[in-house]
Amino acid sequence: MLPSPMKAEVISVGTELLLGEILDTNARYLGAQLPALGIDLYYISKVGDNLGRLSEVIDRAWGRSDLVITTGGLGPTEDDLTREAIGRVMDEELQPDPDLERQLRDFFEKRGATMPERNIKQAMLISSSSSIPNPRGTAPGWWVERDNRLIVAMPGPPVEMERMWDKEVVPRLQRHPGAPQSVLVTRTLKTAGIGEGHVDEFVSPLLKGTNPSIGVYARADGVQLRLAAKARTEEEARQLIEPVEAEMRQILGAFVWGADDETMEYAIGEQLRSRGLTLATMESCTGGLLASVITNVPGSSAYFRGGLVSYATEMKTEWGVGADVIAEHGAVSAETAQAMARVARERLGADIGVGITGVAGPDSQEEKPPGTVHVAVDTGMIEPQTLSYQFAQSREAVKRRAVATALTLVRRTLLDWEGGA
Amino acid sequence: MLPSPMKAEVISVGTELLLGEILDTNARYLGAQLPALGIDLYYISKVGDNLGRLSEVIDRAWGRSDLVITTGGLGPTEDDLTREAIGRVMDEELQPDPDLERQLRDFFEKRGATMPERNIKQAMLISSSSSIPNPRGTAPGWWVERDNRLIVAMPGPPVEMERMWDKEVVPRLQRHPGAPQSVLVTRTLKTAGIGEGHVDEFVSPLLKGTNPSIGVYARADGVQLRLAAKARTEEEARQLIEPVEAEMRQILGAFVWGADDETMEYAIGEQLRSRGLTLATMESCTGGLLASVITNVPGSSAYFRGGLVSYATEMKTEWGVGADVIAEHGAVSAETAQAMARVARERLGADIGVGITGVAGPDSQEEKPPGTVHVAVDTGMIEPQTLSYQFAQSREAVKRRAVATALTLVRRTLLDWEGGA
Repeated sequence: MLPSPMKAEVISVGTELLLGEILDTNARYLGAQLPALGIDLYYISKVGDNLGRLSEVIDRAWGRSDLVITTGGLGPTEDDLTREAIGRVMDEELQPDPDLERQLRDFFEKRGATMPERNIKQAMLISSSSSIPNPRGTAPGWWVERDNRLIVAMPGPPVEMERMWDKEVVPRLQRHPGAPQSVLVTRTLKTAGIGEGHVDEFVSPLLKGTNPSIGVYARADGVQLRLAAKARTEEEARQLIEPVEAEMRQILGAFVWGADDETMEYAIGEQLRSRGLTLATMESCTGGLLASVITNVPGSSAYFRGGLVSYATEMKTEWGVGADVIAEHGAVSAETAQAMARVARERLGADIGVGITGVAGPDSQEEKPPGTVHVAVDTGMIEPQTLSYQFAQSREAVKRRAVATALTLVRRTLLDWEGGA
Repeated sequence: MLPSPMKAEVISVGTELLLGEILDTNARYLGAQLPALGIDLYYISKVGDNLGRLSEVIDRAWGRSDLVITTGGLGPTEDDLTREAIGRVMDEELQPDPDLERQLRDFFEKRGATMPERNIKQAMLISSSSSIPNPRGTAPGWWVERDNRLIVAMPGPPVEMERMWDKEVVPRLQRHPGAPQSVLVTRTLKTAGIGEGHVDEFVSPLLKGTNPSIGVYARADGVQLRLAAKARTEEEARQLIEPVEAEMRQILGAFVWGADDETMEYAIGEQLRSRGLTLATMESCTGGLLASVITNVPGSSAYFRGGLVSYATEMKTEWGVGADVIAEHGAVSAETAQAMARVARERLGADIGVGITGVAGPDSQEEKPPGTVHVAVDTGMIEPQTLSYQFAQSREAVKRRAVATALTLVRRTLLDWEGGA
């Protein structure tokens, strides 16, 4: 029998959230994170930049939850009120902390600026609060501990909040006496080139298990299998998952391309690195998005040579795509995509070249409708691979889809091309 | 003196929302809809499929708001509990409604199916509630009216909810005696090159105003000022905003680059197009993201020539960046960024070249820490503009920030370079 878990509650602060100007991705991020810590999330609230209502919401949360997590309202402006509201609920006075103030002034000096005096707000604490470092911004978080209950206040910008949660808050929560005694560990296997029905069929004998439980989900980048195991320790939970994962990988073989947060560009990068291969790109309709996605992977400079963005058609010929190819088949054609892939490989001295040409829209081009895309991969060693399709979407969706297609095609090429090993 | 507006509150029902499995786009949709109806949204709450907690949240909302809007929990399954919770809060019994039951059975028969008996839930009403038609699903909504207050319960699937809101709920709200006599009009001014603290300081005399109210928000592409005016008509509201907007533009001058939904890349594109100028890029640490963002604008082929992504350092020299420049100042330096901007302009035959070099991280390069970025813009006509800074963030955030900086610098160049007009 596992002990009862910690009750948590998330409060997202900011009038812009109530006005629908931005989506509250922070609450979603935290909602997805808490189960693994064995913490149950019962309520999510959004409230505007109003001291009375914000205090009311925090006061209610403080009354019914063990852990209250707030995001937003820690900025330097007059309508950043989270600190004031917590102080009011706890009935404690805000005082500037000398160390925090120094760090804050340093932060600005390092950037050759002087601190606007109102930023002093961000150096305030109450006696029950300690500060949580925020290397990505000027707003430190608050760790408030009283009566065996916690308030964790984090800044609103996701890059700041997520780092603070991951690097600072989670470790403190795990050290905390009230820390949960059971954890839920999940493992996601990502597949490509196989449908939901077939995955379901292949692994059906395993689906009966309850710990880990197994779910099959169709996602934009392929079908995913989600294993979730509950145990007293992360270690125990992992031991429950391992044999099942191993069996699945055996059944699904090369269909599995990654796990958990692994992206296709990351998986490909691992392949290229381990095989000592390099990659180069030439794009038109995606306008550099493929190169950008590839270089989102840390260390991609080890295998990514570079890319050409030939937006004006004459750039294609200038860089070596045969004018005859374009004349005969058009700038938007499988043949041109193949020529672009070859040019990328040769001009940038890479082992593998990728070419993308198409019509991002909203207007047609060469009588080809928006969403027409041709992707090609060239190695000079094995038969070039080409994929063509037409799928009308928003301009940016067309670009994203073309990039996903290109990455899948590179992965397929790497599987086929043993010669590169 | 305007009549005090209707106080509204949104409750999103569903455990999947708490687990972060889906984003709550319904609350965002409603948040964006309410201001134009002159309705103030004070709270958004999310709660799981639990009768006790759901009733608690609805009860609190009923106690403090004129209009309570719920989405979700109207399905046929055992964990669809919104009707039960409302019945509990109103202390009224749920009874099947003969008309609704017939419509429901028809719905299934029309699709050649028989109604599963548990769907009878969806034909239930309480005495204070009338049903709201839902042609897109089996769950009718609830319109609950008592003590001059309203509860509107709508289904969770956005296609069903949005149609019900637009076609059924809004007209009823406008007919309702308590209907608001005022509208809210908002205007957002977008700035660049100035921090939140300073913007706040500069416009602080205006911040005291309540109609329009003014909010200052830090966004990835710069600090934004949001003016919100309330009046009996949209026309009146605009007249309240105009003078304040004019004053702000005067105070902030060229820091203001756009308004409302305008993006920086769009604003620059308009400039380039109208002045008949062309643009080209050479990127390393941003890996093509700048070119990709520029080409997100429909019709960008009119002014964007193309781009080079020199990820491997030797690509820089191969394309014409002086080996001596790199040897002397390093691949990550203002001098190299300037050379890259010139190369982009010359090699791609554009009027304006942009160069970006830096360290995306997580590792340092040439002893330069992650987040070090140098951006340069070259026209061959006026003094090249260069911006250098260091701001440690996630790899992708470093890229996004560098792109935003580059766009800002292009904008500044267009302001300075009258010669191009």
